[in-house]
Amino acid sequence: MTGQDEAPPAPSGRRSARDERRQPTIHDVARLAKVSIGTVSKALNGNGRLSAETRARVSALARQVGFRPNHLAQSLHRGQSFTVGVISNDNFGRFAMPIMEGLEECLAEQRISVFMCNATDDPALEARHVEQLLAKRVDGLVVTGRRADRRPPLQTPLGGLPILYVFSQTDDPDALCLLPDDRGGAFMATEHLAKLGRRRIAHVTGPERFEAVRLRRDGWRAALKSAGLAATDQSCLAGAWSEAWGREALDRLFAGKRPTPDAIFCGNDQIARGIADALRERGLKAPQDVAIVGFDNWLVIAEATRPLLTTIDMNLKELGREAGRRLMAMIAGEKQSGAHRLPCSLIVRESCGARLKAR
Amino acid sequence: MTGQDEAPPAPSGRRSARDERRQPTIHDVARLAKVSIGTVSKALNGNGRLSAETRARVSALARQVGFRPNHLAQSLHRGQSFTVGVISNDNFGRFAMPIMEGLEECLAEQRISVFMCNATDDPALEARHVEQLLAKRVDGLVVTGRRADRRPPLQTPLGGLPILYVFSQTDDPDALCLLPDDRGGAFMATEHLAKLGRRRIAHVTGPERFEAVRLRRDGWRAALKSAGLAATDQSCLAGAWSEAWGREALDRLFAGKRPTPDAIFCGNDQIARGIADALRERGLKAPQDVAIVGFDNWLVIAEATRPLLTTIDMNLKELGREAGRRLMAMIAGEKQSGAHRLPCSLIVRESCGARLKAR
Repeated sequence: MTGQDEAPPAPSGRRSARDERRQPTIHDVARLAKVSIGTVSKALNGNGRLSAETRARVSALARQVGFRPNHLAQSLHRGQSFTVGVISNDNFGRFAMPIMEGLEECLAEQRISVFMCNATDDPALEARHVEQLLAKRVDGLVVTGRRADRRPPLQTPLGGLPILYVFSQTDDPDALCLLPDDRGGAFMATEHLAKLGRRRIAHVTGPERFEAVRLRRDGWRAALKSAGLAATDQSCLAGAWSEAWGREALDRLFAGKRPTPDAIFCGNDQIARGIADALRERGLKAPQDVAIVGFDNWLVIAEATRPLLTTIDMNLKELGREAGRRLMAMIAGEKQSGAHRLPCSLIVRESCGARLKAR
Repeated sequence: MTGQDEAPPAPSGRRSARDERRQPTIHDVARLAKVSIGTVSKALNGNGRLSAETRARVSALARQVGFRPNHLAQSLHRGQSFTVGVISNDNFGRFAMPIMEGLEECLAEQRISVFMCNATDDPALEARHVEQLLAKRVDGLVVTGRRADRRPPLQTPLGGLPILYVFSQTDDPDALCLLPDDRGGAFMATEHLAKLGRRRIAHVTGPERFEAVRLRRDGWRAALKSAGLAATDQSCLAGAWSEAWGREALDRLFAGKRPTPDAIFCGNDQIARGIADALRERGLKAPQDVAIVGFDNWLVIAEATRPLLTTIDMNLKELGREAGRRLMAMIAGEKQSGAHRLPCSLIVRESCGARLKAR
């Protein structure tokens, strides 16, 4: 190859290991079959004019020597590498993981491999990753984050390269952003509590600077309104995304002389767990005295909460799969843009009281 | 390219998007600079005999048109792709992710990109991933799992390809396996409790079929012996990796008339949290009545436990970095084999009582 050498120099002593793992090439197959390279290509691709006997003989020989097509060469030829780069700002964290799982599963079915890069919210590192991925001739890029808030658009010097944001969004109106429907999920949770007969449904949530906090609060308010219930400022408490905040918020809700809630919809599962613990320590029962619904369906929390936590699942793995499907459509030339929100699901366990009712 | 076409057929309508994102090639630079391709190559690689003026002019033009070396072409030429494949059987889970983070960070510094594949413990899917990665001409493979127990060696038809197991191991004596030092970590935890003056140190742990359970128990026993303390069968309880098991085990330890423990070393953080909750619910105090040390330093558990959990950290990110360094050495031709165990660290918080002593 010609061109500027960006890659590190070859360490000495490599040759023997390299030779040992040299893969058989189309030249080896042609030599053994005593035919031309063109004939091998036709035989293996099943095209061109060739006798059935030659085709069978060449294919058998290729299998015998362990010939494997070289994707690098195919990629150069076609201008498509069948690789995709993921840039995560979630440090391989709990939101990025299920998204990656769905994305990789979807793309693997189409024999597209995924490069995983961690940009740790460092714009300079992100730019280096992008440069590296473009040099690898990826067919598309996926950006994901630890929170779904807006970020500056990914800087790429290359127009037309498909880029998709998942659990992440940007102001660029031409960008395609896939997000969970936070508002819809919150509406579903609150409506569920209202339908179970709860009348004083409080909301304890995370920091207001998160878009998700604002959307979930809107969903809670809308569901209360639609059920003919009141949302007061006192019944909505914003704090941290932690169990400790859940415990503190519960104390605040039960401190004054005003009526106490008979249900609490929580902005995440950690807050919900803190509330469940604080209720028990007050001698109150969930769901009998106060019903609880969380948000995230983070199993290590939801399944360890006493009682088992009813919660909203953002379906992040499905979000990842949808990202894979849409990215493939974009690679195929389809234009896609705008922010799309995918539905959440309600996971009913014990803390909401639905199973009490069912008895 | 010639050869068997394994990749999916090109969808129609792609050409326009493809053309739009066509990257400038060395041919474009040569045409614009009115020199040969060989001259461009010499100018950009800084080698060959060329006037300083030509070198500067060609480099400036290459920058101007946004020329980027094509790694695919370089890889074909050199027989090294500067890519590595990771096969995870942890579904992008909590053990694989910090390992990936360290590995990717280490390799990214060397401009090596990482393909991430999820094999979900399915041997057929694992084999398809390996085949796919070999076709992509990866320079090496990393295998990781959700538990460090032995697994069958990765089946690859290619001798000499560097393969490394991290948080995973295999019987093949030629394989390189990197693991946390479970026994050493358990010794450290128990020794810490003994040095703080605890005399009846129980061990509550996970299922015995896990090698980690057996190694951690050995470490606990060895530390007790070295401190002149007794390990009895009654003071070691194996169960599930859950908070519920932690609570149940605490009840068992306090059920009989025999002396109750003044410290408990737990096989993981979830068990430790269950024990801390059950102690509080019995009206007992940690660490005053019973000191607790966990294992994993899984922050969502350790930092939510009351009191904050002292625990063992397996340093999985560092394990991933070490895997990256060793894999690069293997790619460079160095032979490496055997199981290597990297040290764990003790993270002192409040549950062990060290901070009480310090006051």
